[in-house]
Amino acid sequence: MKMILAIIRIDKMNETKRALTEAGISSMTATGKVFGRGKGLWDAKVLEGVKNDTPEALAHLGKEPRLRPQRVLNIAVPDEDVQTVVDTIIEVNQTPAPGDGKIFVLPLAETYRVRTGETGDLIL
Amino acid sequence: MKMILAIIRIDKMNETKRALTEAGISSMTATGKVFGRGKGLWDAKVLEGVKNDTPEALAHLGKEPRLRPQRVLNIAVPDEDVQTVVDTIIEVNQTPAPGDGKIFVLPLAETYRVRTGETGDLIL
Amino acid sequence: MKMILAIIRIDKMNETKRALTEAGISSMTATGKVFGRGKGLWDAKVLEGVKNDTPEALAHLGKEPRLRPQRVLNIAVPDEDVQTVVDTIIEVNQTPAPGDGKIFVLPLAETYRVRTGETGDLIL
Repeated sequence: MKMILAIIRIDKMNETKRALTEAGISSMTATGKVFGRGKGLWDAKVLEGVKNDTPEALAHLGKEPRLRPQRVLNIAVPDEDVQTVVDTIIEVNQTPAPGDGKIFVLPLAETYRVRTGETGDLIL
Repeated sequence: MKMILAIIRIDKMNETKRALTEAGISSMTATGKVFGRGKGLWDAKVLEGVKNDTPEALAHLGKEPRLRPQRVLNIAVPDEDVQTVVDTIIEVNQTPAPGDGKIFVLPLAETYRVRTGETGDLIL
Repeated sequence: MKMILAIIRIDKMNETKRALTEAGISSMTATGKVFGRGKGLWDAKVLEGVKNDTPEALAHLGKEPRLRPQRVLNIAVPDEDVQTVVDTIIEVNQTPAPGDGKIFVLPLAETYRVRTGETGDLIL
């Protein structure tokens, strides 16, 4: 089993959930808002300036919203379904603009369904 | 060390925290609301219809609340305490109805206590 | 790659983000409020009393706020940057009082940038 954390745009959540359902992935958990920042949000010169304590760079950093609102979708699947989930999320969430998000795949040691106490390779 | 993520009913949170404390597990983090959906929330026919683009199935999916509110409890423990945590959560959270939740056990590479900088097998 | 989850004081978030940016870590995701409790929040006698169903201990537990509000900062970095992130967070977040937080380092199986579909050792 793997746990997939996808940090995506808020307005892509419904389309992503529907695409995953259509791909046969029916179990997932969505968090409330999170606030994310990718490498692309900052100009390299600003980052360099911050490291060197340049007042202009620090002021710039202070004025801008530092992190943009996003949502996290949390999906646990057997190993053979990971690629389907990743491909589906990428397909739905790619836009021409920065901020499309990130996908993290984490190893899972164990998974349990509370209602039955079942464990193993679960279709949750 | 392992990190245990338990996605449970909101109204089971206090009872779960108390049962874990009684079982000797005193450190945990609870998130705000999340929105979860298990396999059981959807009739197999509806899911099949969604895959086949059947208008009735899509309409059904559109009308229902897709994800139910739940909470995530995050607990990090030494390996030998994992089974106690899992058993305690399952015991408290089993009801006759669907939606009891899921438990994920993730491997932890390292754990640190910020106040002291300690790392290793921590009773946090 | 590793995923670092730091559960820290709410009022240390901005300083932590700035210190990480100065250390060259520019990509991160912050959650809304979470509610955490460390070992130190409970007196050992109270915990012992709860286990033994002592009414005074249970009353004590019931009256106090059980979990304190904190924030989670989620940062994914190549293995060689983990120590920088951990050291930076510890340095900024240590205070003389309990409740400074915890840092969890989780193994990552894979990471993807949604915009480009890139995977591997990403500077996100």
